[in-house]
Amino acid sequence: MKIDIMTLFPEMCEAVLSESIIGRARKAGLVTVNCHNIRDFAGNKHNRVDDAPYGGGMGMVMQAEPIYNCFKSLFDGEKPHLVYMSPKGKTFKQSDAVRLSKMQHIVLLCGHYEGVDERVLDEIVDEEISVGDYVLTGGELPALTVTDAVCRMIKGVLSDDICFTEESHFDGLLEYPQYTRPEIWHDREVPKVLLSGNHAEIAKWRKQMSIEVTRQKRPDLLK
Amino acid sequence: MKIDIMTLFPEMCEAVLSESIIGRARKAGLVTVNCHNIRDFAGNKHNRVDDAPYGGGMGMVMQAEPIYNCFKSLFDGEKPHLVYMSPKGKTFKQSDAVRLSKMQHIVLLCGHYEGVDERVLDEIVDEEISVGDYVLTGGELPALTVTDAVCRMIKGVLSDDICFTEESHFDGLLEYPQYTRPEIWHDREVPKVLLSGNHAEIAKWRKQMSIEVTRQKRPDLLK
Repeated sequence: MKIDIMTLFPEMCEAVLSESIIGRARKAGLVTVNCHNIRDFAGNKHNRVDDAPYGGGMGMVMQAEPIYNCFKSLFDGEKPHLVYMSPKGKTFKQSDAVRLSKMQHIVLLCGHYEGVDERVLDEIVDEEISVGDYVLTGGELPALTVTDAVCRMIKGVLSDDICFTEESHFDGLLEYPQYTRPEIWHDREVPKVLLSGNHAEIAKWRKQMSIEVTRQKRPDLLK
Repeated sequence: MKIDIMTLFPEMCEAVLSESIIGRARKAGLVTVNCHNIRDFAGNKHNRVDDAPYGGGMGMVMQAEPIYNCFKSLFDGEKPHLVYMSPKGKTFKQSDAVRLSKMQHIVLLCGHYEGVDERVLDEIVDEEISVGDYVLTGGELPALTVTDAVCRMIKGVLSDDICFTEESHFDGLLEYPQYTRPEIWHDREVPKVLLSGNHAEIAKWRKQMSIEVTRQKRPDLLK
């Protein structure tokens, strides 16, 4: 699978993409992730990619042409699936991570400043995704968030296929509490059942705790 | 305001925090943001901070003591407000960004691997925040997301106080479409009203478009 990120901050994105699980997946050739600087497609000597909004208002708007040309440069035979990271998009869920992880080639477009000229969005964008209902400076952190969630779903990226199925949000429940050494920490003991060696009892306790934690913290997920 | 991030990947976080609006706000002294490596508080010669989960299962769990000691090192007089970036947390919203931006000192704890020993969470965490219903590798991208959203709300960080009030999600509506030069791009014209110079008409059109876009894309926000 191939993921291309179109951004004004490729170095910042690259720093995140080199670490941890995504970094290892890239080195192992399980996924190709590249960052592309929209400014390289400015087409003017000052590398300017934004201008004032028509109708007035604060801030600058990213122009259509550099984004369009950057996107065209990423075609390898056919048009990739273009996702615009936008606060106006559909709210990203785990099911979207699974869906996108099955595609051959996706491109994530990061806006910045006050936004992007609507016409280029109308022309090239396949879907708009928002990571949540809050205001961020640009689409970079959302694109990295989507890249992380998608990469984890690609076969071979996690050490064992079983791993992610017990994470919060994977099966619609939050994860049970975890404990590690020492057995007593600040007078707090590890729940006895986890020391019992009885796998059936442990599985039962974890399932109960998952349901209990979800009921307490996110009752909306149980519906 | 001061934000401390407790993480196993301080360089990755620093790369993001040096760019764009957060980078400028830090340089201008409007906000202090520092990253702290939990591994520096491992207290053993191999700098090990994780161990196998009690009760078995995949992956490793972050131990209580290094996190506890890292957190204690951040006290300056009083206990800062500790936020654990967790998929089990309350879903982050713009109102949380505004609320947190009014605090003197917050600490963001990033989990990694299969999670964090529940006992240290019980002992030191003030609130758990999730950025959305999806599975990520660690709390770093969520912590950076929260830092970005919070920093934007600190007085003086954005060039003009008016700026953020027109963004999607700030007032519960999505933003109207934006356009910039040229007037015609790929046969697509800028809406005539934006070229009219009539500020009242432009404001009216933008408000209508905001409501229309919200109705089409996120009708749940209109309730």
